[in-house]
Amino acid sequence: MLTLCGQHLINGQWTGQPDSDFHSFDPATNAPLPWQFADGTEADVNQASDAARAAFLEYRSWTPQQRAGLLEAMADAVDALGDTLTDVAHKETALPRARLEGERGRTCGQLRLFASLLRGPRQSRIIDLGQPRRTPLPKPDIRLDQLPLGPVAVFGASNFPLAFSAAGGDTASALAAGCPVVIKGHPAHPATTELVTAALFSAIERVSAPRGVVNLIQGRSPSLSRALVQAPAIQAVGFTGSFAVGQQLSQLAAGRPQPIPFFGELGSVNPQFLLEETLAQNSKTLAQQQLQSMMMGQGQFCTSPGLVVAPKGAGLDSYLQALASGIRAQAAGTMLTPAIAANYHHAIERLSATAGVHELALGLEVQRPNQTQARAFVTSAAVALCQPQLLEEVFGPVVLVIETEDDAQRLRLIDALPGQLTATVHGSEAEMQKNQSLITALAHRVGRLIANQMPTGVEVCHAMQHGGPWPAATHSQSTSVGAEAIKRFTRPLAWQNMPQSLLPPSLRDNSDAPQLRY
Amino acid sequence: MLTLCGQHLINGQWTGQPDSDFHSFDPATNAPLPWQFADGTEADVNQASDAARAAFLEYRSWTPQQRAGLLEAMADAVDALGDTLTDVAHKETALPRARLEGERGRTCGQLRLFASLLRGPRQSRIIDLGQPRRTPLPKPDIRLDQLPLGPVAVFGASNFPLAFSAAGGDTASALAAGCPVVIKGHPAHPATTELVTAALFSAIERVSAPRGVVNLIQGRSPSLSRALVQAPAIQAVGFTGSFAVGQQLSQLAAGRPQPIPFFGELGSVNPQFLLEETLAQNSKTLAQQQLQSMMMGQGQFCTSPGLVVAPKGAGLDSYLQALASGIRAQAAGTMLTPAIAANYHHAIERLSATAGVHELALGLEVQRPNQTQARAFVTSAAVALCQPQLLEEVFGPVVLVIETEDDAQRLRLIDALPGQLTATVHGSEAEMQKNQSLITALAHRVGRLIANQMPTGVEVCHAMQHGGPWPAATHSQSTSVGAEAIKRFTRPLAWQNMPQSLLPPSLRDNSDAPQLRY
Repeated sequence: MLTLCGQHLINGQWTGQPDSDFHSFDPATNAPLPWQFADGTEADVNQASDAARAAFLEYRSWTPQQRAGLLEAMADAVDALGDTLTDVAHKETALPRARLEGERGRTCGQLRLFASLLRGPRQSRIIDLGQPRRTPLPKPDIRLDQLPLGPVAVFGASNFPLAFSAAGGDTASALAAGCPVVIKGHPAHPATTELVTAALFSAIERVSAPRGVVNLIQGRSPSLSRALVQAPAIQAVGFTGSFAVGQQLSQLAAGRPQPIPFFGELGSVNPQFLLEETLAQNSKTLAQQQLQSMMMGQGQFCTSPGLVVAPKGAGLDSYLQALASGIRAQAAGTMLTPAIAANYHHAIERLSATAGVHELALGLEVQRPNQTQARAFVTSAAVALCQPQLLEEVFGPVVLVIETEDDAQRLRLIDALPGQLTATVHGSEAEMQKNQSLITALAHRVGRLIANQMPTGVEVCHAMQHGGPWPAATHSQSTSVGAEAIKRFTRPLAWQNMPQSLLPPSLRDNSDAPQLRY
Repeated sequence: MLTLCGQHLINGQWTGQPDSDFHSFDPATNAPLPWQFADGTEADVNQASDAARAAFLEYRSWTPQQRAGLLEAMADAVDALGDTLTDVAHKETALPRARLEGERGRTCGQLRLFASLLRGPRQSRIIDLGQPRRTPLPKPDIRLDQLPLGPVAVFGASNFPLAFSAAGGDTASALAAGCPVVIKGHPAHPATTELVTAALFSAIERVSAPRGVVNLIQGRSPSLSRALVQAPAIQAVGFTGSFAVGQQLSQLAAGRPQPIPFFGELGSVNPQFLLEETLAQNSKTLAQQQLQSMMMGQGQFCTSPGLVVAPKGAGLDSYLQALASGIRAQAAGTMLTPAIAANYHHAIERLSATAGVHELALGLEVQRPNQTQARAFVTSAAVALCQPQLLEEVFGPVVLVIETEDDAQRLRLIDALPGQLTATVHGSEAEMQKNQSLITALAHRVGRLIANQMPTGVEVCHAMQHGGPWPAATHSQSTSVGAEAIKRFTRPLAWQNMPQSLLPPSLRDNSDAPQLRY
């Protein structure tokens, strides 16, 4: 059996006493797994964030190339965990091994994307050249730089034990920006978190980075999360999780003696808009795509398509028929945790009991603990407009189909929609042109607007925006996936009239970095 | 006498009943000025922000060229106010006419800078080209756009009746971004605000912009400011003012049912660090520069240099002598409002009563209402380190000189400094190289780091950063001066797999806008 220490990592030291009560569980059986973990305290949090602050004093002066080397060493070390990592993560999450292998690849890919960003030509620096002889006043020489904010708190997410946990997107982008991290491991997969954090630390040692550049606190108590957001040394937070927790922590971040930015990605219902002609022509294909996307990860994705909006008619009838028969054939699947399974059951009970909402179909019976059945419900736009809670996310394998009477009603529905991570419009180019008002209204409601593709499978690339208007995210001006995520953890600094030798290299006259000059 | 209606501007209608109690005053005499103004209510605020929301539905689809035309028409209209504007502003603020003429030029220059930004080559758009044949999964086509947030609340500032009031930087950058504004006029200069707003509205009519794209609420009550920040239609706030008010409104913005970003610039003490050799060689010139900068606008600038840090010794003695004789020759000057004058007097009383703080010199006696005398105080770093309130801003013509024993003490002082808009290092290049640790520490405390120039006179240009770590600003990642200020009021939107004809023109394959392609 794999041996784990079950401790926190603070300034390069594994520390803390594992607690015989704090295990992770195999969600497929509810059996406790054989490792015990330390349950962090406020003192641990403060030690870890002070260690990150001390590391920042050195790490903030590391060159982009040095930071790239660290990220690459981390990617190699996570890669090298191989099947050990996917085995442990599979035990703790019940996610299929193939999915976890893909997620491991994505995690290492993210680390390497930020490394390549740091090694490649940097984004243009803005330079205002001085004009000492300008009248009536000389123009000073001003050059705009980006500085790291300082230690970042990273919250591991339940549904991405690798790509949004210890070595996930928030850690990668913070380290790329020049910020040390304090990771709060998600209590549903502490073993996975320890394995990954140990790999990160081996990379730190390999490239002689400051030891406190990655710290880990394991723990179960919500008070631990609050303490981390409030730790004085912490200068920003990266969070992926539920609306309730994210909203509470976001308020704490804003209410600190020194308020700090809280970058929370809180989920979404990701509406699918089916246009009339395309729906009439492709109803079965559309239903198949919907089914496949909503069943990925048993619906436990923030981009899971939980809402379909379509005009009443024969096309929709055919779509519903295909969707219903697909749903009925779905085997039950295991959720990540008992709490997530229970929340799903409660939400389904509420949906079923809502007047005007009809159950279209349900999947095969559950066989084991923590399993859920796929579900589809149908309602009318008139009902949904009166009961806005129908437009909120249910985390799991469920879709609500809303039938609309006309375009005006559809626009009213968009007005009633909370901010979304994504929306998709399914239609031909000509149809979309005829529905320009729908496209415009949706653009102002979402972070990513998609044509004829499903929202699951968030590409990690340069142009990705994973975020959106509140409440999809706490901070609509930033992304938690893709290269632009680095901007969450930097701030601008203008250097005025500074001698060349004291400027950062990318701002000097002789730099070969791209510079926008005015 | 100039006729003013004294009303609010809501959706292109002047409305509201002027209140015989609500005048502005000539601060040089405390005499009420002859115009009366309506005192806004929460209902007015909500009407104005709803009008801005309605205007947004049209204005958000205006092209960059159309928005540029509006900003240029506004600049022309403010220019055309000519002496009428500076006369009225002079009566309401007692600021010298030459300063107000300069500020009018700056205000129109800001509007035109954002217009040129919109007309010029836009900043690079990021495009990830699709790879439909990539394995194991195809790569979608993703293109990153920037969308306006929606209606912006703009708070007029007392100390910049033109450049940070109705047609100031926040209004210019919000309109450039595609966001309508609701202006809360500062109650110390409502006549100036009405004149400028009427000019803005004439430009709106000239280019047939939506009538609700600029709205104005006049008023005196703090409850009005709170109502504006909490109005549901408002999607972001631009604020320049005191720490106390800014902090309170910022908390309200974060605590709304839908939290919104609050971009507050709250002021700063702008420390001047004098390096030893340069101080020894140029003590008189340095004292002269300090005096000139701190007396600009009677010290009522957020970039006024209120703190000098220098090593004990003969150089500093000579500097203090020159500074003292300069201060003693300064005539008293009129402050913007009785409240600002009273706050200054209280702060000076507190400073004078602080153990270990010695008065170095004071200026000529006050002669008229609301005048203040220039002041200089001296203390040791040891005293300042024990009493952190000494490192906070006093708004007015005062400087505190802190003598340091050695470099280590100077670094401790920087650690104790709150976040700053600016800091200046006065020293030769060779001296700065020897003091690299000072430069690095300061860079992480400020928004703008200056060599051998004074902080007053904020250049409106592309590379400017006017902001800084909290509490200098509520949002260290943004600027309130310069072209980058437009970014406060936009957010990213990713278009995925969208047909060319439905993409914004700058994201299409055939666009001549700069595109970063991956």
